[in-house]
Amino acid sequence: MPQDIDILVSEVGPRDGLQSIKRTMPTEAKLKWIKALAASGLREIEVGSFVSSRLLPQMADCAALVKEANKIEGLTVLALVPNLKGAENAIAAGTRKLTMPISASRAHSLNNIGKTPEEAIEEVRRVCAFRDALPVEQRPDVEVGISTAFGCTFEGKVSEDWVIEMAGLLSKAGADSIGLSDTTGYANPAQIKRMFARLRGEIGAEKMAGAHLHNTRGQGLANVVAALEVDVTTFDSSLGGLGGCPYAPGATGNIVTEDLVFMLEAMGLRTGIDVDALIIAREVLLCGLPNEAIYGNVPEVGLPKGFTYAGNKSAT
Amino acid sequence: MPQDIDILVSEVGPRDGLQSIKRTMPTEAKLKWIKALAASGLREIEVGSFVSSRLLPQMADCAALVKEANKIEGLTVLALVPNLKGAENAIAAGTRKLTMPISASRAHSLNNIGKTPEEAIEEVRRVCAFRDALPVEQRPDVEVGISTAFGCTFEGKVSEDWVIEMAGLLSKAGADSIGLSDTTGYANPAQIKRMFARLRGEIGAEKMAGAHLHNTRGQGLANVVAALEVDVTTFDSSLGGLGGCPYAPGATGNIVTEDLVFMLEAMGLRTGIDVDALIIAREVLLCGLPNEAIYGNVPEVGLPKGFTYAGNKSAT
Repeated sequence: MPQDIDILVSEVGPRDGLQSIKRTMPTEAKLKWIKALAASGLREIEVGSFVSSRLLPQMADCAALVKEANKIEGLTVLALVPNLKGAENAIAAGTRKLTMPISASRAHSLNNIGKTPEEAIEEVRRVCAFRDALPVEQRPDVEVGISTAFGCTFEGKVSEDWVIEMAGLLSKAGADSIGLSDTTGYANPAQIKRMFARLRGEIGAEKMAGAHLHNTRGQGLANVVAALEVDVTTFDSSLGGLGGCPYAPGATGNIVTEDLVFMLEAMGLRTGIDVDALIIAREVLLCGLPNEAIYGNVPEVGLPKGFTYAGNKSAT
Repeated sequence: MPQDIDILVSEVGPRDGLQSIKRTMPTEAKLKWIKALAASGLREIEVGSFVSSRLLPQMADCAALVKEANKIEGLTVLALVPNLKGAENAIAAGTRKLTMPISASRAHSLNNIGKTPEEAIEEVRRVCAFRDALPVEQRPDVEVGISTAFGCTFEGKVSEDWVIEMAGLLSKAGADSIGLSDTTGYANPAQIKRMFARLRGEIGAEKMAGAHLHNTRGQGLANVVAALEVDVTTFDSSLGGLGGCPYAPGATGNIVTEDLVFMLEAMGLRTGIDVDALIIAREVLLCGLPNEAIYGNVPEVGLPKGFTYAGNKSAT
C-alpha cells in the first residue's frame, strides 16, 4: 500500500470488464484507456488475462498491454493467469503481479475450468514453485482471489468453513496474498464482515488481499462499508461497472469505480484518485467501444456541491 | 416497533414516489397498490400528503386513502403534513401518525416552503399544541424528518451542529420522534454513523426515528449499513425506487424497498416482508401507472439460489 493513500482501489475493467464483452477493443484503444485510468490516480490496474486466445480473443494482446503499461510510473500492472502456462507467458511478458481466480464452489470450478478446487490449489502451488525458481528480480507477486466465496449460482450456499480452509491451503501453497470474490453477487454485509475477519485470522493481515465485490443485487457499496468495518483496505472495481452482468440487463456486475471513489473520499478515506479524471476515462473507454452500456450514479449526477476530497482538495 | 421484527421498513412510495410524478394515479389504483404493499408484510406506509391540492393534485385524495388504509389490520398509516392546516385535515381524516419535513438548510427551507427553519420549528410546536388539546384517543404521533440533514443542493455543506441543535429544539417543541433525511443524496457512511450517534445523544433513543436515505450517488444501501452500525432500526424506502430523481434519468431517488429488504433479511435482520410479494406489488403499481420507470436490482435478477429469510423461512 502506498503511504499516501488509505485505500487501494484496484481497477479491473480492462480485464474483467472487457472479457465479458463479445467485441474486441483494439490494442491501441485499450492502451489509451489504461493511460487515462492511470492518469486519474489509480495505482493498480488489471490489464488483461493470459488465457488461450482461442477461448478469449478479446485478451489476445495481453503481453503487449503489460509491456506498455509497465512504462507508466507508479502503476502496478496485474494480469490474470488461469494456470502454469499462463503464468509462464505472463512472467515472460514482464508481469509483476499475477492474479489467479480459484473457485470455492466445486460445481462452479468444474464447470468453469474442468478442475476441482483441490486441483486448482495444486496449480497455484505449481505456479508459485515456478516463480520461486526464478531469479529474485523476475519473481512476480502471486495473488489468489477465491471466487464464489459467498455463494454460487449452481450450488447456492457455499460452506464458509471450506472457503477459510482453502485460504489456509493457498497460503501454504505459496500465494503472497489471498482475497475473497463475490463472483455471483450473493454476498451480504453481515457475511462480508464475518468472512474477512475469519480470513485475517486464518492467513494474517499481511497476506490478506482485498474484496472483489459485485453490485448484482444493489448491495456492492454496502458490502464495501461492511468490509471497511473489519479493516479491508483493497477493493476491486470497474470503471463504468463495465462487464455488466450475465443475468439481466441493467443489473451491473462489478462495483463502479467512480461511485466507489466518491464514497471512500467522502468518508475521509484517501484513494489518490480524481473523480473528474475517471469521468474523462469513461469517454476514452467509449471511444474504443462505441455505444457500450456503462453504469454509475456519480457520473450521471455529479459530485455534491461543495464536495471535498479526503485530503481536503476541492472538487473542480 | 412490533416484537417480531428487528427492522421497520417504512414504505414511502405512495407519498414520496407519487408526488414527484406528474401523472395522477387514480384513487382506486392507489388503494390496490397500498393493499399489495401491506400484503407483502410492510407495517408502515406513508399513503399521501395533506397539502393544497392546487399545489399537488396527485395528493388530493389523501383523506380517502387514510380512511381506507386504516382498515388494513396491523398497518400504521402515515401522512405528510406541511403545516397546522394540513395537520387539522389529517387528524379529521383519522390519520394516526403525522410526518412533518423540516429543512435544516435555510436556503432549501425558504425556497421550498417560504419559511426559515426557525419558523418551521414553530409550526411543529403549533401542530403539537393542537394535537395535545385533543382527546387522548384522537392524538396522532408527530414525527419530524429533518431534511437536507447531510447537505443541500443550494448551500452545499449543512452545519452538523445546527442539524443536531434543530433536533433538540424539535423535541422540546413536542415532536414524538425525529429522523434525519438525506434529501439530496449527499450523505456518506461516515457521516451517517456520526450524525445518528449524535442524534441519539441529543434526543435519546426513544425519540429517535429512522433514516430516510436516497440512492442518488449509488450510496443508499451503503448508508443503511452505516446506520445499522449505530443501531438505527427504521428505514424509509420506496417500492421500485419510485420517484426517481430531479437531476438525471437513471439516477434513483429513494432507496429501493425490494433491494433493502433483501439485504436486511440476508444479514439476518427480520423485516417481516416477503420479497416475492413486493415484486407482485410492482405489477400492481404498474397497472395504475403504466410504463412508469421503476428501479431495483433484486427484481431484475431474483433472489440468490438457496436464499433464506432471517427467520429461516425459505424463499419460494
